[in-house]
Amino acid sequence: MRKSGARLDRREFLMRVGRSAGGAAMLRTMAALGIGSSLAGCGSSSAASAPGAAPPTGGGAEPSPRPGDWPPNAGAGQSVLILGAGIAGMTAAFELAKLGYDCTILEARDAAGGRNRTLRAGDLVEETDSTQRVAFDASDELYFNAGPSRIPHHHELLLGYCREFGVALETFVNDNHAARLHDPLSFGGTPELARRVRSDLHGQLAELLSSAIDQGALDQALDAADRDRVLDMLTTFGDLGAGRRYGGSTRAGFPGQEDVGSRRRGETLAPLDLADLVSSGFWTERLSFTSGLDQQATMLQPVGGMDRIARAFEQRVAGDLVLNARVTAIRKTVSGVRVDYELLGSATSIEADHCIVTLPATVLTEIPGDYSPAHKAEIDAFRYTSAVRIAFQSRRFWEQEHSIYGGISWTNQDITQIWYPSHGFGSRDGIVLGAYAFGGPPGDRLTALTPGQRTATAITEASAVHAAFTTEAVNGVSVAWAKVPFQRGAWGVSTPSVLLTPDDRLFYAGEHLSMLQGWQEGAILSAYRAIDGIVASATG
Amino acid sequence: MRKSGARLDRREFLMRVGRSAGGAAMLRTMAALGIGSSLAGCGSSSAASAPGAAPPTGGGAEPSPRPGDWPPNAGAGQSVLILGAGIAGMTAAFELAKLGYDCTILEARDAAGGRNRTLRAGDLVEETDSTQRVAFDASDELYFNAGPSRIPHHHELLLGYCREFGVALETFVNDNHAARLHDPLSFGGTPELARRVRSDLHGQLAELLSSAIDQGALDQALDAADRDRVLDMLTTFGDLGAGRRYGGSTRAGFPGQEDVGSRRRGETLAPLDLADLVSSGFWTERLSFTSGLDQQATMLQPVGGMDRIARAFEQRVAGDLVLNARVTAIRKTVSGVRVDYELLGSATSIEADHCIVTLPATVLTEIPGDYSPAHKAEIDAFRYTSAVRIAFQSRRFWEQEHSIYGGISWTNQDITQIWYPSHGFGSRDGIVLGAYAFGGPPGDRLTALTPGQRTATAITEASAVHAAFTTEAVNGVSVAWAKVPFQRGAWGVSTPSVLLTPDDRLFYAGEHLSMLQGWQEGAILSAYRAIDGIVASATG
Repeated sequence: MRKSGARLDRREFLMRVGRSAGGAAMLRTMAALGIGSSLAGCGSSSAASAPGAAPPTGGGAEPSPRPGDWPPNAGAGQSVLILGAGIAGMTAAFELAKLGYDCTILEARDAAGGRNRTLRAGDLVEETDSTQRVAFDASDELYFNAGPSRIPHHHELLLGYCREFGVALETFVNDNHAARLHDPLSFGGTPELARRVRSDLHGQLAELLSSAIDQGALDQALDAADRDRVLDMLTTFGDLGAGRRYGGSTRAGFPGQEDVGSRRRGETLAPLDLADLVSSGFWTERLSFTSGLDQQATMLQPVGGMDRIARAFEQRVAGDLVLNARVTAIRKTVSGVRVDYELLGSATSIEADHCIVTLPATVLTEIPGDYSPAHKAEIDAFRYTSAVRIAFQSRRFWEQEHSIYGGISWTNQDITQIWYPSHGFGSRDGIVLGAYAFGGPPGDRLTALTPGQRTATAITEASAVHAAFTTEAVNGVSVAWAKVPFQRGAWGVSTPSVLLTPDDRLFYAGEHLSMLQGWQEGAILSAYRAIDGIVASATG
Repeated sequence: MRKSGARLDRREFLMRVGRSAGGAAMLRTMAALGIGSSLAGCGSSSAASAPGAAPPTGGGAEPSPRPGDWPPNAGAGQSVLILGAGIAGMTAAFELAKLGYDCTILEARDAAGGRNRTLRAGDLVEETDSTQRVAFDASDELYFNAGPSRIPHHHELLLGYCREFGVALETFVNDNHAARLHDPLSFGGTPELARRVRSDLHGQLAELLSSAIDQGALDQALDAADRDRVLDMLTTFGDLGAGRRYGGSTRAGFPGQEDVGSRRRGETLAPLDLADLVSSGFWTERLSFTSGLDQQATMLQPVGGMDRIARAFEQRVAGDLVLNARVTAIRKTVSGVRVDYELLGSATSIEADHCIVTLPATVLTEIPGDYSPAHKAEIDAFRYTSAVRIAFQSRRFWEQEHSIYGGISWTNQDITQIWYPSHGFGSRDGIVLGAYAFGGPPGDRLTALTPGQRTATAITEASAVHAAFTTEAVNGVSVAWAKVPFQRGAWGVSTPSVLLTPDDRLFYAGEHLSMLQGWQEGAILSAYRAIDGIVASATG
């Protein structure tokens, strides 16, 4: 329902764009929005593969713009002020400079990257009502990403920059059959291995369809030859046994495998009761998570932390970057824009021909400015999801005792997910996420807690999945995006509309203004759209 | 059929063991064999998830032995001669030395590792009728494993040695939704992306079962509440749309995605016709490959090449290792064994109390020895599969143009598989396998070709999957295990029987004598079984 509602908003909006800016602008906007395709949602949510998501329709829009679409010297003699040195802002500065624009980036924090952030020993985690210092041992491996953490293999704009900048990449393990699924209300609260749940669901689904076919239920839909072929397919798909019954499969592993490992392969496990596996949406939804386009293997991560990407961009825009510059007002002038800001506390201001505002709407809403009423209204109403990560240093008990190398366990508790590190396999310690909660109540509840309460909650809930959390997990630290100054939210979830159009010389960008909300790729797409608007306004 | 036949052989054999060696020996042998579980087959074959594989039965055997099961000083004053410095031989030497045995390893080649082999610039590839020199550019990243190439996360004995020896591990990408499936006889010979085949199979399977349930076909099997829950499950599982029909899914990707990437998400792809997807076993079997227990994520590889493991073992047994020692005869003596061998051409011999023979049966069959008739018969009859890998250096067009990072594409041609490197993402060149053929005719046919014919065949066939092979793939080199001296085969496929039992003071080991044939883990298990036999013979 929400999704079709979203499509309606966008259609209305497009009619307005069509009237005001003409077809080409509308097509580009459609492309930027990925009209018709369900908004991808953040990789972290399972929205991308949400049940009942209506199949995309429409399309046919030309692709959104990219470098190369703009005339080489489009920017000669023109200046652009960019607010925010996140991925969107730095992408804009990097590409605009190539076009000859004179760029300045104002960044409130003392480092570039925005939500692209990696936390290591000694780092400060400041929230609106708390401050933590990361107590991990100092080590190249002991870090966690307190922001974007994985890159889908088809996010080729971001991956192209990694290639261009020489940012080394490695695999991010998103799907691990040795990881666990845990619902306190199912199977007496015992966690089940993903391999077993998957095998038993596939097997029993195949057996059901096979017996339906035997009963002739699909004689209309399938001719005799196809029926036989489907039955063969089901036998393979479900690893069915004699009489095409599912009696368990080696795919599910062996009893006590975590103890005897490869030293015994005897009987297989009895199939989990289908009634239990369908008793809640939990099981199939979690299993289907990595079927979502933005969650499919291969997923990638930079070697050494996601902020390797931020540092690579920062290097290339350093000359245009002003850190510790907190914007206090955004004003329109006759010829362009003026932005007032405090540089290390002292008030100053800067003018430019154009301005790209990449600040999260949750931050922008508190900054006075000459926004059009329609733009201001959308800024004030734009919703963000809350997300919380709680990280611990720990001996790698998940590798040493459970053969878990990377990947994600799911639990139907507030902590939602447990993440095992995808790098440093085999070393003594690793950083494990005892919680990654997002999207609604779980994220909101953990956000409301103090850092101390969060780590305590994570250890309590995670120990239902791995008892070792109580004895092995130390140096806990948490990040709640909604409470991080200059972030104030994890990612945008409202459907962008007016903010996709120019506000005189103001252009808005950021992941929330893309069809890939919550992804760095979306931030890049939004920067390209803003550049396109500036080029059009100058040349048009 | 083959499998049940295999089980029969093993049952017969166990009755013999039971009579001759008593229950404990039989239990251990059962465990070593993993009786009841289908022999896992090599990770490279799809046997592990073969359709119709009967669900394992029996079991209950105690786990096979491991270090710690043997008395600390069991070996005091005793000597063991080990033939072959592969993983089995070096594991035996490493563990026997801890027990106080005086070990000597005779290795015919000038390096240890056996089939654990990594090829780099300048290496020689010698076969019975050809010699190649690897022409890759010299680089840490430009290598390929001409033997075992991946480690299942639950092969914890091998992974334990990696941890103990400090061998760094990284992810081996076994399942990549961006990889391709190609059957010259389907879809007009157009390769399809794995994501599309998977999504469309799941979607149409879910739609079929859903409509069968609507028709009441499962009213006996499921009560009303369960029916509704199963329908919800199917909606999620198949990403079904309105009316629980499958009309395509974002999971399958978008038309032209390889060109426009993330810059457009319009309409989804029309579902592939189910009739085509089931027209041959190819599609479901290839999709199911990574559901097999030994092929499930997470898969691992040593950083820098699989031979990092061989080098780590070699370091630890170097003092007992004699290279360039070609065994010419294996003799039994009153008190033990005598082995004649040629050391760099000159004949010599050595005696010991016990001997572990880890040579492949295909090599051993040509070495005269005092084997018992039953052991000799099994040695001569033991079958191995042939396998061929054909590797090329190439610009990483698969990453740069197709967003493929690691993983395997399948084709229904002799080359069988195309492997993309799981490491060095983003660098200019990589080593791609233009062929990995195994198990039967494809492996046999490529084995019969000259190296030049193999690379030509690989480029021709691989270009049907990626046209760029014709222009980008250079420096081709191939390995056909069946023609490699002192290997003479890829992995054993006969069901071991008598060779699992002592032959006086001769004990046999090697991957082919384990329940994990074709895996290094199996070689380790076989070494443990041999050690167990030696300890038992000494103490018993």
